[in-house]
Amino acid sequence: MPSMVKTNALLSFSLFLVLFHGSLGLTADRSRNHQGQCQLDRLNALKPDNRVRSEAGLTESWDPSHDQFQCAGVAVVRRTIEPNGLLLPSYSNAPQLIYIVQGRGVAGTLMPGCPETFQESQGQGSRGLQDQHQKVHRFREGDVIALPAGVAQWCYNDGNERVITVAVLDVANNANQLDDMSPRNFYLAGNPQEDFQQEQGQSRQRREQRTGRQPFRGHDQQQQCSNIFCGMETSLLAEAFKVDEQVARRLQNESDRRGNIVKVKGGLQIVMPPSLRQEEHEQEHRGEHRNGLEETMCTMRIRENIGDASRADVFTPEAGRISTLNSHKLPILRHIQLSAERGVLYNEAMMVPHWNLNAHSIIYGIRGQAHVQVVDHSGRTVFDGEMREGQVLTVPQNFAVVKRSDQQNFEWVSFKTNDNAMISPLAGRTSALRAMPAEVLANAFRISVEDARRIKFERQETTLISRRSTRSGNWAEA
Amino acid sequence: MPSMVKTNALLSFSLFLVLFHGSLGLTADRSRNHQGQCQLDRLNALKPDNRVRSEAGLTESWDPSHDQFQCAGVAVVRRTIEPNGLLLPSYSNAPQLIYIVQGRGVAGTLMPGCPETFQESQGQGSRGLQDQHQKVHRFREGDVIALPAGVAQWCYNDGNERVITVAVLDVANNANQLDDMSPRNFYLAGNPQEDFQQEQGQSRQRREQRTGRQPFRGHDQQQQCSNIFCGMETSLLAEAFKVDEQVARRLQNESDRRGNIVKVKGGLQIVMPPSLRQEEHEQEHRGEHRNGLEETMCTMRIRENIGDASRADVFTPEAGRISTLNSHKLPILRHIQLSAERGVLYNEAMMVPHWNLNAHSIIYGIRGQAHVQVVDHSGRTVFDGEMREGQVLTVPQNFAVVKRSDQQNFEWVSFKTNDNAMISPLAGRTSALRAMPAEVLANAFRISVEDARRIKFERQETTLISRRSTRSGNWAEA
Amino acid sequence: MPSMVKTNALLSFSLFLVLFHGSLGLTADRSRNHQGQCQLDRLNALKPDNRVRSEAGLTESWDPSHDQFQCAGVAVVRRTIEPNGLLLPSYSNAPQLIYIVQGRGVAGTLMPGCPETFQESQGQGSRGLQDQHQKVHRFREGDVIALPAGVAQWCYNDGNERVITVAVLDVANNANQLDDMSPRNFYLAGNPQEDFQQEQGQSRQRREQRTGRQPFRGHDQQQQCSNIFCGMETSLLAEAFKVDEQVARRLQNESDRRGNIVKVKGGLQIVMPPSLRQEEHEQEHRGEHRNGLEETMCTMRIRENIGDASRADVFTPEAGRISTLNSHKLPILRHIQLSAERGVLYNEAMMVPHWNLNAHSIIYGIRGQAHVQVVDHSGRTVFDGEMREGQVLTVPQNFAVVKRSDQQNFEWVSFKTNDNAMISPLAGRTSALRAMPAEVLANAFRISVEDARRIKFERQETTLISRRSTRSGNWAEA
Repeated sequence: MPSMVKTNALLSFSLFLVLFHGSLGLTADRSRNHQGQCQLDRLNALKPDNRVRSEAGLTESWDPSHDQFQCAGVAVVRRTIEPNGLLLPSYSNAPQLIYIVQGRGVAGTLMPGCPETFQESQGQGSRGLQDQHQKVHRFREGDVIALPAGVAQWCYNDGNERVITVAVLDVANNANQLDDMSPRNFYLAGNPQEDFQQEQGQSRQRREQRTGRQPFRGHDQQQQCSNIFCGMETSLLAEAFKVDEQVARRLQNESDRRGNIVKVKGGLQIVMPPSLRQEEHEQEHRGEHRNGLEETMCTMRIRENIGDASRADVFTPEAGRISTLNSHKLPILRHIQLSAERGVLYNEAMMVPHWNLNAHSIIYGIRGQAHVQVVDHSGRTVFDGEMREGQVLTVPQNFAVVKRSDQQNFEWVSFKTNDNAMISPLAGRTSALRAMPAEVLANAFRISVEDARRIKFERQETTLISRRSTRSGNWAEA
Repeated sequence: MPSMVKTNALLSFSLFLVLFHGSLGLTADRSRNHQGQCQLDRLNALKPDNRVRSEAGLTESWDPSHDQFQCAGVAVVRRTIEPNGLLLPSYSNAPQLIYIVQGRGVAGTLMPGCPETFQESQGQGSRGLQDQHQKVHRFREGDVIALPAGVAQWCYNDGNERVITVAVLDVANNANQLDDMSPRNFYLAGNPQEDFQQEQGQSRQRREQRTGRQPFRGHDQQQQCSNIFCGMETSLLAEAFKVDEQVARRLQNESDRRGNIVKVKGGLQIVMPPSLRQEEHEQEHRGEHRNGLEETMCTMRIRENIGDASRADVFTPEAGRISTLNSHKLPILRHIQLSAERGVLYNEAMMVPHWNLNAHSIIYGIRGQAHVQVVDHSGRTVFDGEMREGQVLTVPQNFAVVKRSDQQNFEWVSFKTNDNAMISPLAGRTSALRAMPAEVLANAFRISVEDARRIKFERQETTLISRRSTRSGNWAEA
Repeated sequence: MPSMVKTNALLSFSLFLVLFHGSLGLTADRSRNHQGQCQLDRLNALKPDNRVRSEAGLTESWDPSHDQFQCAGVAVVRRTIEPNGLLLPSYSNAPQLIYIVQGRGVAGTLMPGCPETFQESQGQGSRGLQDQHQKVHRFREGDVIALPAGVAQWCYNDGNERVITVAVLDVANNANQLDDMSPRNFYLAGNPQEDFQQEQGQSRQRREQRTGRQPFRGHDQQQQCSNIFCGMETSLLAEAFKVDEQVARRLQNESDRRGNIVKVKGGLQIVMPPSLRQEEHEQEHRGEHRNGLEETMCTMRIRENIGDASRADVFTPEAGRISTLNSHKLPILRHIQLSAERGVLYNEAMMVPHWNLNAHSIIYGIRGQAHVQVVDHSGRTVFDGEMREGQVLTVPQNFAVVKRSDQQNFEWVSFKTNDNAMISPLAGRTSALRAMPAEVLANAFRISVEDARRIKFERQETTLISRRSTRSGNWAEA
């Protein structure tokens, strides 16, 4: 059947194209609204600028007007959720990646039009009425959760220790048609303060002076109410939900002082997903189908673990490990155009000098500390210092960077503004210098051909290296 | 033949991917140039700001520098074409969607490189010479016409009543590489005034002061001539068209005072397409092939009706109907990244509170009036008022909105800045609140679980509701 | 086997979609960061503004802050490389197209993760050690080379005459997440000056005054060192490359005064690709597979010739020829969203009036001179003058343009900001006027139907015309 062979050949081309298209990392279809103010003279490793305490947790945000966040077009927020704490449902104008630094819990993502597939068993509901709702996801330390712009999510800590999350909102992403560079959270419930405070009072004041307008104030609302139901008439809400006005008024949560993370007394009694172990086991068993082709938005995975050592993509026994999460592993990332990297550097190990080819990298320090140097196009050092646990440092696209752990292990997660972010290492097995003929190096650096070969071949490792490396550097034997 | 099965399975994956890719509405490949100045304190339902009368019609435009149009990155224009009126051929730097509010006529879209498939029959041409030209499209009330950036179009009213069209030009669309936010129409003929007036005299003056430059004035041109032939030497035109200079000069339409809509005495004698009924009948018969795969730019449909009640996607007998037009129904929309929604609300009916997940919505009132409320991320009401026939209101992405008809039916068309715009309803069968466990609602809103279930399940309808609804709200029976 | 037939039919649809998707030239997935400041009153044919001499060549750049480059979002640079000159490896924040105006040589593109496929034969290396490196490409006059953002490249003149290249960097391309509008070259070696000088001293000074900050100065660096190794500690480099500090310091090329093009004494002794003729011969023999489906980034073609007369897409014996290079011919262009056009106009021939439908066009004059007119949307002539060899003129998207050679042949290359740039001619066989019914023209231009037919049909040629044309203009015979 020769035509069959041809058919299959064509098919594999066709599928290849699909994969290839995604794998380039250089493709055209990733796009960003905003080109950064990246005229950066100096970067800083930054701690959060704002702290807002809630009934059952803490929201810490980095001021998005910092130069390095304006350059990268992102906003960063860290949340601490106490056991039995519920982060109220909200959506944002920017897609985001959330990394679970610590703890475990459940999250619900509200996809319009997707079915309510979780049902209470008979008798579980009060008064014999059964509840049903959309899928609830378990999460644990080391997970990355992807959340598209405009999609609402709630989150609950059902564990025994605090949940700590770090989220990067990609404000410059094209999915955000709304606003220059301001992340905005729209809460469906509660009466929270704004998560991101950005010298806000001033700018609003200035705007009012400039436009000569007073802001319009809706009915029944003066800071005592900040969710999206607040701006609507209670009678309309009552009609919309077919409930009496008293219940409708509760949607507006007026004068609720609990903040955006509220305490659930006695714990949340809901239809829970199977245990995490069981869920992951099932995922592995449908492994061969996890190729991104058969998933719809309603069943699409939004979570993947990159914290476990067993998931490392680069592993050098003496130096450390790196796990990457891109749109091949988690297809929804193709739609939100972000990816992530989780790294561990052992003491006195180094991640070789490299540049981010097609993305900004927003690094969050999880544990320990490292010495980091970042260099711009003119050879100027724009960062040369320590980066510590709990700090954020942005490495702009194309800037060269080198990291070296200091006295202890260094662990980090990097959020990258491309769904297939690529690095180009300068040293080691996959380096740019190794890709060039030794004669080119010799002439470029005015060194002997032997020295050029040393520079090309002495380091055999990929990306992560250690002084204590036992691998032979004698490339001639290779 | 097991491999055959596999082949087909792979194929269906492959096709699914294509469909799925499009259906997400969250995909990454829609992108916009400009992120709005969406720091809006107040929205307004706006009437046109400019009126320009022509020989056979009227052009009314909304000033694109209004805050809400700057936020959405669009410009809006309404045209009235008298019977026998011809809108001169022009192209624009922005893709656009045109809605036919009233009337019927024909339009020609000039696609470079596409064949002239319409030919005069023998003897029809004067002096025995046959004319031939590209396809001419019929249109009628309720049609949406899609027009890519840079593609020229003319339009003629061959009916007995006025044609009224409303067009939204998506200036922030990436297809417009040209200009910050200004829509520009390039006329191939005539001597029209600019369609969009944007405190223009002033800004030009200011620019000249700033740059210290006088604008360069070409030969034979001082406002008496404004089509694209005006700026070229007559002798070059004569050579280009191989005609004498006298004819070439007519291309420049100097001192033509008819404006952009001119009267055709005796009516246009051209090769007309078959009647609309016949054309649509043919479309339905090639229905199964209308999947977007086999269409080239030359044969691609540019028109689809969403005015007919029979095309409703959401229909609630007591409340009204909604028809949507996205890139699944009209594949060219994938290329211009816009979609449309046509709605009818019966008297005292409501479109439930919702937010636009991935698009701005530019609403044009076709008939009647409604009470509309729009709420921003901080719960502030940025619009709370009546919206009437002939007015335009922009609802920014992610802002919550509720519409309720007032004393009479309300009809509208919404233009959306995403080819698969999605809404996320807050009440009713597909709502975000219904997607959450009742226990989450109870804790979020500090209400009983029974009230939470009421909020989730009382409203059984989808999107459109009426007080007079006969449907049972007793969800427990569901 | 009916299902087989269906399979193949589906397949061909699927493939068609792929091709079709690309062929539109109107598709949505091309996007740009920046919308130009295209409020241009006047364009100019520009010579380079800056000249930087190196040991073995010359770098001339156009100031990217010129209005027309700000509008197009590009930067232009011309390099002259002497025989035995080596352009040091560098990468840029913008994708670029490079046209080889003169000469021949070899280039190496450093793709991270791609294998070192070129190996020295035994005994060729000194001390018996064999070098290996990534593929090296030959190039010659008339070639276009495509280079993605963030990918490093070096280039060497192994011929007997100077190599002259002109490159357009698409700074507004979405692949550049880095910077407003500034092209930045990151050198891996040497100590070159910045390629683009943009009233730089002033703007930096202004920025410092504004921010009240002093730029941060790294260690061992004060203009004597400008490659990306300069900003890193020598001890870290020594550790990264496992070499002693003395060798590591050579990577920083401190006080190297050779500039970015250095002289290779005795010529570069590397593993060279087969002769150009052989390489092109091989390309032709794998012709049927060159459909873009089976190429990965590592084996993707980055080069194509458009200088040879035999490659013309439009050829009019009396008037000249045009060759276009788009993403169908060179698939990598799909990823960098640029295309090119090479044209020759014989003496007193004309490229008919037309507009660029979906791209800006940046024209570089290769030989001779032409009279060019460019017209904006209001009919204003924004350019009316001569364009000469070595000059650059930008024609913004949608502006009408006409070119006519003057006293001698005119040769040019145009770089276009869309991977399938389309033009819409106003005269000739494929013109917009021809696409309209003669009756529409007659009414639009107030001419007789006969004159309208003359305007439509007298010119039979496509795009290029000559007074001396022997083709009959008697359209009635057609």
